[in-house]
Amino acid sequence: MYKVLDEDSIKDYVDKTREIRSLVLQDSQSINELDVNEIGDGNLNFVYILKSKEKSIILKQAVPYLRCVGVEYPLSRIRMTFEIEALKTQKELCPSLVPDIFYSSHDMSLVVMQNLDKHKILRTEMINRVIFPLLSEHISTFLADTLFYTSDFYMDSDKKKEDVKKFINVELCKITEDFIFTHPYEENDTNEYNPKLDFKHVKKFREDTEVKAGVLEMKYKFMTNTQALLHGDLHSGSIMLNQKETYVIDPEFAFYGPIGFDVGIYLANLIMNYFSLASDEKEYGNYVLGMIKETWEKFGQKFKNNMIENEKQKKSLQFDYPNGLHDLEYFTDKFIKEIFEDTIGFASCEMLRRTVGLAKVADIAEIEDLERRARVERRVLESASLLIKSKSKIQNIDEIINMIKKQS
Amino acid sequence: MYKVLDEDSIKDYVDKTREIRSLVLQDSQSINELDVNEIGDGNLNFVYILKSKEKSIILKQAVPYLRCVGVEYPLSRIRMTFEIEALKTQKELCPSLVPDIFYSSHDMSLVVMQNLDKHKILRTEMINRVIFPLLSEHISTFLADTLFYTSDFYMDSDKKKEDVKKFINVELCKITEDFIFTHPYEENDTNEYNPKLDFKHVKKFREDTEVKAGVLEMKYKFMTNTQALLHGDLHSGSIMLNQKETYVIDPEFAFYGPIGFDVGIYLANLIMNYFSLASDEKEYGNYVLGMIKETWEKFGQKFKNNMIENEKQKKSLQFDYPNGLHDLEYFTDKFIKEIFEDTIGFASCEMLRRTVGLAKVADIAEIEDLERRARVERRVLESASLLIKSKSKIQNIDEIINMIKKQS
Repeated sequence: MYKVLDEDSIKDYVDKTREIRSLVLQDSQSINELDVNEIGDGNLNFVYILKSKEKSIILKQAVPYLRCVGVEYPLSRIRMTFEIEALKTQKELCPSLVPDIFYSSHDMSLVVMQNLDKHKILRTEMINRVIFPLLSEHISTFLADTLFYTSDFYMDSDKKKEDVKKFINVELCKITEDFIFTHPYEENDTNEYNPKLDFKHVKKFREDTEVKAGVLEMKYKFMTNTQALLHGDLHSGSIMLNQKETYVIDPEFAFYGPIGFDVGIYLANLIMNYFSLASDEKEYGNYVLGMIKETWEKFGQKFKNNMIENEKQKKSLQFDYPNGLHDLEYFTDKFIKEIFEDTIGFASCEMLRRTVGLAKVADIAEIEDLERRARVERRVLESASLLIKSKSKIQNIDEIINMIKKQS
Repeated sequence: MYKVLDEDSIKDYVDKTREIRSLVLQDSQSINELDVNEIGDGNLNFVYILKSKEKSIILKQAVPYLRCVGVEYPLSRIRMTFEIEALKTQKELCPSLVPDIFYSSHDMSLVVMQNLDKHKILRTEMINRVIFPLLSEHISTFLADTLFYTSDFYMDSDKKKEDVKKFINVELCKITEDFIFTHPYEENDTNEYNPKLDFKHVKKFREDTEVKAGVLEMKYKFMTNTQALLHGDLHSGSIMLNQKETYVIDPEFAFYGPIGFDVGIYLANLIMNYFSLASDEKEYGNYVLGMIKETWEKFGQKFKNNMIENEKQKKSLQFDYPNGLHDLEYFTDKFIKEIFEDTIGFASCEMLRRTVGLAKVADIAEIEDLERRARVERRVLESASLLIKSKSKIQNIDEIINMIKKQS
């Protein structure tokens, strides 16, 4: 059944697949009226724009290897099944924050969806210093709703366990385990360094007892905490947006994991953008710090609100006493405090690995002056080390913002 | 394929099943030389002793309902599949502490195993005040080895995830979620109370903010922490032993859960036996307190030892620096401290639910003087409440023993 499509064979495939054909072409139109263009910027997959005079859609197909390396790095195309299932769940929970899914095929490992041609990638936009006043409102909703409504706080015990099983995502979790939680903390051939970054700064955190224990703790949580269906790769390259709309894309890393992972990866990418700013970019810096604060605080409020409203509807016997709702609130505050600690821990790992591991963030890696880039990287390493070491003592997001400001 | 066996049809079945027949009968012997007796004390399953002149074995079959209630309480017989798989894993890891498994059939939901006719149930023996000098050594090994070698610290990431999937044990986990973590903390019809226990003591912990938050926290951990393949029901009724040997049986509740659950359930059952003792049983009391201390301390040492020895063999790059092993040890001590906190939390839940939930422990429930029983139950409730509220502050097992002594 499965075959790898290319710009030629895709027309044939679309012509035969009514559900897709009817999305872009009228019955009377010939398949030759369809323009096919491969975007060519995916690390893992092939992404095609299918365009007729009136309409355009995206077709994304997974191939059985890692695209950015080639056929010699095999990677099962089952990842598209996880992406499809996660997209469907997230679309149901946050309809306005996830692109429309028009068609999907597990056999062909492909998904057809809304073409976000009026939207741009958040990372690129942040590198261009564009401000998005609604972004933090949107992302905090995405986080609070996808993470609460796939958790045991909301789902039935049996349904949730079946979901955990369905989303056991062996291969893509292994990539995260290796490239976020292992290789960057050892002398591994896959790591890449800015030649101007003095290696003593790398060695310092790599042989720091507390950093090491913190990273292991976060890796273990990543591997053992089935709290909610995560996006699994929520950096600023997985978000497309404009001034009005925000879309979260590419959830092929989805699995049941610790809530703080999604929140932490996202915040880490904001923090790294902040560190990448030049000294005369204070205004954008304040905007980024504001995003960090707003995202965390609104996420916390919305998650708590979901918890309380859900309990009010369920009216479980367990809280059926005068102070019951207060006690649930007390528990929720404690729980969110734990998520906060996890968020700091995961954010630190993301910051460390994006500096000394294989994958870099363009915000920093594209700084042309390697000496200045090294200074930025030192600040990232210092902050991440400090954050992971003090995560249990940090009381609120303002303390983090003050730490970051002091570093810069 | 599946059919429910009884004392008559079982002979037919054994006669036809060579692998079982040959365990107890020689080819020349007639099936009529086989004695079949149903033990009749299982809550969930039917357990038969098959006995010839020379040999005897146990055949245990799951029926598609809860035996102790009847056909009106359906319970999928898939639980035997979990029991078989867990027995096999545990037997491999702790050969001397798990009965021999001779034959198993998922289709027939049955397992054939060693007849432990020279061994008795630990709970009964503790009610008879029998001392077992080797028990804590054995159980601490069972805990440290089954829990370490099924965890991410030892297993390959992919194999462990497949195991998590295989052991998603929806129905039996739900029983625990309901009867250990929910009903006892609310006014639920399934709860049963000693009529002489003043209800104000029940109401007190049920409306205590910290107890409530603690119980919810433990329930959530039970539902989301896939740390290791647990036994899942390790109370003193799941252990058969004599002065030389100890066997752990009945792992149908097995699933990937938090390590502290197995340890906590076991310790709670020791603590409850301690509270059940009369004032003139000081000697046995000191023995029980000694068991609590020895079990925890040896578990901790053995788990740590497994961690360090495993790392020495693997020699991962991550600890390949002068202070590497020290840093792993530092992490391990922190990790075991967390397991200790979980252990206290789960032990508290077990103590509370065994007092005001549906299932009781015979050590206390068989105290004939209901007034004295109520005094014991009050001490159990008070200690459990205190333990769960102070679990993050307790530094070592001696503090717990002192708290228990003070209560009694």
